[in-house]
Amino acid sequence: MKKLLSLLFITCLALTASAEDGHQLWLRLQPANKAKVTTEKTSATINIAKQELEKYYNGEQVTLKLDNTMADDDGYRISGTTITARREAGLLYGAYALLRNAQPSAISPQPSAIAYESHPAFELRLLNHWDNLDGTIERGYAGKSIFWGNEELRLKNEELITEYARANASIGINGTVLNNVNASPKMLTTPYLKEVQRIANILRPYNIRVYLSINFATPMALKETKTADPLDKTVAKWWQKKAKEIYKLIPDFGGFLVKANSEGQPGPGDYKRSHADGANMLADALNAGAKGTGTQPIVMWRCFVYGANHKGEDRVKQAVSEFKPLDGAFRPNVILQTKNGPLDFQPREPYSPVFDQITKTPNMAELQITQEYLGQSRHLVYLAPMWEEFFKDVNPQKLKGVAGVANIGLERNWCGHHFSQANWYAFGRLAWNPLMTAESIAKEWLLLTFTGNPQFVRTMTQLMMESREACVNYMMPLGLHHIFKFDHHYGPEPNGFKANYPLEWCPVYYHKADKNGIGFDRSSKGTDAVGQYRPEVARLYDNIKTCPENLLLWFHHVPWTYRMKDGSTLWESLQYHYNEGVLWTEHAHNIWHNKMRQYVDKQRWQEVDWRMEHQEKNAREWRDVCLKYFGSFVEQ
Amino acid sequence: MKKLLSLLFITCLALTASAEDGHQLWLRLQPANKAKVTTEKTSATINIAKQELEKYYNGEQVTLKLDNTMADDDGYRISGTTITARREAGLLYGAYALLRNAQPSAISPQPSAIAYESHPAFELRLLNHWDNLDGTIERGYAGKSIFWGNEELRLKNEELITEYARANASIGINGTVLNNVNASPKMLTTPYLKEVQRIANILRPYNIRVYLSINFATPMALKETKTADPLDKTVAKWWQKKAKEIYKLIPDFGGFLVKANSEGQPGPGDYKRSHADGANMLADALNAGAKGTGTQPIVMWRCFVYGANHKGEDRVKQAVSEFKPLDGAFRPNVILQTKNGPLDFQPREPYSPVFDQITKTPNMAELQITQEYLGQSRHLVYLAPMWEEFFKDVNPQKLKGVAGVANIGLERNWCGHHFSQANWYAFGRLAWNPLMTAESIAKEWLLLTFTGNPQFVRTMTQLMMESREACVNYMMPLGLHHIFKFDHHYGPEPNGFKANYPLEWCPVYYHKADKNGIGFDRSSKGTDAVGQYRPEVARLYDNIKTCPENLLLWFHHVPWTYRMKDGSTLWESLQYHYNEGVLWTEHAHNIWHNKMRQYVDKQRWQEVDWRMEHQEKNAREWRDVCLKYFGSFVEQ
Repeated sequence: MKKLLSLLFITCLALTASAEDGHQLWLRLQPANKAKVTTEKTSATINIAKQELEKYYNGEQVTLKLDNTMADDDGYRISGTTITARREAGLLYGAYALLRNAQPSAISPQPSAIAYESHPAFELRLLNHWDNLDGTIERGYAGKSIFWGNEELRLKNEELITEYARANASIGINGTVLNNVNASPKMLTTPYLKEVQRIANILRPYNIRVYLSINFATPMALKETKTADPLDKTVAKWWQKKAKEIYKLIPDFGGFLVKANSEGQPGPGDYKRSHADGANMLADALNAGAKGTGTQPIVMWRCFVYGANHKGEDRVKQAVSEFKPLDGAFRPNVILQTKNGPLDFQPREPYSPVFDQITKTPNMAELQITQEYLGQSRHLVYLAPMWEEFFKDVNPQKLKGVAGVANIGLERNWCGHHFSQANWYAFGRLAWNPLMTAESIAKEWLLLTFTGNPQFVRTMTQLMMESREACVNYMMPLGLHHIFKFDHHYGPEPNGFKANYPLEWCPVYYHKADKNGIGFDRSSKGTDAVGQYRPEVARLYDNIKTCPENLLLWFHHVPWTYRMKDGSTLWESLQYHYNEGVLWTEHAHNIWHNKMRQYVDKQRWQEVDWRMEHQEKNAREWRDVCLKYFGSFVEQ
Repeated sequence: MKKLLSLLFITCLALTASAEDGHQLWLRLQPANKAKVTTEKTSATINIAKQELEKYYNGEQVTLKLDNTMADDDGYRISGTTITARREAGLLYGAYALLRNAQPSAISPQPSAIAYESHPAFELRLLNHWDNLDGTIERGYAGKSIFWGNEELRLKNEELITEYARANASIGINGTVLNNVNASPKMLTTPYLKEVQRIANILRPYNIRVYLSINFATPMALKETKTADPLDKTVAKWWQKKAKEIYKLIPDFGGFLVKANSEGQPGPGDYKRSHADGANMLADALNAGAKGTGTQPIVMWRCFVYGANHKGEDRVKQAVSEFKPLDGAFRPNVILQTKNGPLDFQPREPYSPVFDQITKTPNMAELQITQEYLGQSRHLVYLAPMWEEFFKDVNPQKLKGVAGVANIGLERNWCGHHFSQANWYAFGRLAWNPLMTAESIAKEWLLLTFTGNPQFVRTMTQLMMESREACVNYMMPLGLHHIFKFDHHYGPEPNGFKANYPLEWCPVYYHKADKNGIGFDRSSKGTDAVGQYRPEVARLYDNIKTCPENLLLWFHHVPWTYRMKDGSTLWESLQYHYNEGVLWTEHAHNIWHNKMRQYVDKQRWQEVDWRMEHQEKNAREWRDVCLKYFGSFVEQ
């Protein structure tokens, strides 16, 4: 009896929980169980497509067809209720597209009656998990890792990882790096590789390849070689052997992601070898390991490097200084992976000039989904408008792929803040089609995740669209950057300076406020960071009169009394932006609290509401601390 | 030497003062002194038009022509630089129009190159001054009276009254009631009438007629009759004699404004006579007095009557109850003057049903320029959008005229708040053309009063346009009304109840908040105030589903959990509106403080800035007090 009762209790809990706790993400499909799905072929992937449609498609029948005359990518064609694709994965993506567009009052880009074809812009659409093997996540704000941790956790996670795979497949993501770029050497030990194999087996039917971050000194750290010098033969041999082991376990293993000679990580520089020496050695090893599998492995080599060979140089210039001379020296299967901005995922940065300067080596853009510097999982900040800005400056056609630093953890709703799910969703949608507007993605996500009620969708789309600029306003308007509190990057510390820290970690280094003004002179008269941009952009940024005002203090040291384009002084303008940012958080919360409750189930409404209340407070702290500090320099 | 120094000091003061202290209102014309002005005739009025153009028109020549084929009103035609009019006054109005439209970057409705004709919609375009003879002003928030007070004041005011006349002429106002509707019997004594004569002489060339408010019991109060019964012959005779005296002094005297049997004022009701008996007696007396002057006098009889014959009835119904039976019983030169709303100049009211019910007697609308219930001279609240709303409900063609309760006092800037000048200006412009949009008037006023800078005009036009709705939001959203602090009508007192006050002065009478809900049931199931409206409007207001939500609590007692059209509950919606109102004041102040300083001279900027800071605080007080009080009824 006692057992029965507690079973009942657990069932009730489960029902309540599965009701609306955000765990279902944007996949809140209602079973229809009526469609007859015809396929010419079966396979694990096609079966998933078939099952999803059989269960959720609210129509009589769907036909899945392979067509090898179509372009050889993950794309699909939908014509009525027939989905055609070159690859099996295309059928899966087509199935999710059909379901997405069939949602009641869907705001679909294509009317379902008309045939349309959709192909991904990028071959590589990856998540990067900064998950450590102990289960913690660097810059993770939604609980511990879904992949790593103690044995118990791992066993429990099989279902979770399937859900993870399905969610990613539904938005077109086709690869995932399972561990932190600050990688543990243990990652490549056999017990962990067997774990990777297990995960890969779950992800494979969903067309998701696994990749691993590696520690460049792994063989030495594991005491299997005496050095990690990439030109040392024992080292190269070790990597080849390791690659073979990996491909035996995971024949479609995607490749390595490497953070080398960056923020204390080992790398080829430790042996006076170049990044190319290091990357090429790994590329060769992977090629050798993959031989016979048909897989073409890649090395994603991160350009996030500073404080090494170009120590002392303006930090935002160091990536180009480091990699430009090596452009052309990499193996064809090495890709340089660069953060969207030259510094570090700030609320607003200019694009990284690496995308202008590296022309002979394939490039990947690293975007950050987890909101390290944008309120983490406590602020409602929709990132797609920021990425939209990026793709206006950096032509997507010049990129081989995009990687998104994930915001996923063990919290029931995956992302901590229900609205942070939108950033995961938007990343996937933009990775498929970077020309989609942030607004249309927001609408789509709101509809799928909450309700299609037009009043709700309209109101919340507007708030989401405004949210990132609001965050810039209350944190770091007009091109200010990196004035966060040390280490945890939450809250303001504009007066931050620690003698025992690298200067480039100190806020005062970035804003350079003094009696004369504020901002970092990166013009041709300053550090000439502008000189790293393509000429027309360099000219624009170099001239204080043409530099976009939202990047003004990024590129110029500007007098407090400087007249902005609208005639207000810089100091007035700073105050204006900070205040407007705070007012937005109050306005947004007022809307959510009093106008949106009716549209949202209790739990999710409440959880968002609490966070918005906190966001208001944090925004006020930002404004008050920054204006007080900067104001102390201004002669009134 | 001492004299010289103090003269210098005074000159400097005068220069500084005349520089930009708001005293020049919207007439900040720069002398050009170049136009040759041709007229066929001279007169005091034509001379003013001529002088204004000679001094300020920045062109070679202007021709002023009278044309008796034009419509017989105050209108004018402008064709190039020729102004033509039927009346001399038309030439004056045409001259100001030419100057207004010639302002740099003027936002003029008509391009000056093309001929256009403009005629006033109303024959009567009056200001009402609620000025007492001791110099105080009822509901005046800008210092003491410019007309009345001690002898010294009066002597000093001759120049001021000329400036007043010019300002009014420049916007088309053609009449003014010089004293409070709560009138002193002394007003009609000979010494005061001689004062009125002096004022009339100053105003006359500017085409402004004087009118007086009278105390209905004047002859009795002056102990010249034993009664004030309008049907008593000695009384009627007294008024005839008095009228003669007036017309001897002021041959174009406009007539009387009467508040009778209202809020303690005497009236015909004291003798069981009707309002018609009283009004007709005065109309006859004025006609007799004006005989031979060519003047057609009027009596403006106010419908603002409650607590008398219909005591106990819903206050907003009493005017119709009182006057409807008398419709048709008045002399042709009696006009009923009715406030725009049925209660008393609230931030938002429905229109007064008097305008639907009184069809045989001429009507005048009484609008309030002084912001008694809209933040007085401390809040930036632009009233034209409210009047625009009124003219959408009440067809201007059905009105004989409009009266605006003035906001003018001895303060250097006339109105206390620099932006309150806009309400005086807008009243004048709408009195000429009620179809002008509030937005175009705001633009015009900003341009003339501050600067034509497009950024300034655009930004401040938007704030002005939003300001009245913001005031409704932070004071009394969704049809709430009269929950002001007693007597001074500033600040909130929703719990207001005083046993020794008339119930209709107590806030609790108006909001009727209880555990079940809030609002005054004036539907057909309640007091049936809706029944006084024309049928299509009555139906609209009567049904809670079709009643405009911004009047909901005016007409209905509504449960706290009632679902608004957007699905939020009433209580949520109330909170939403109060919060948005407060946020607007903060937003508006942020813009003024940080973005508008550059466009505005120091003194005016500072004086507005202080007031906006205060407005924020007062708005917060409104929100906090009201939500706390109403919240105490709501089961959470």
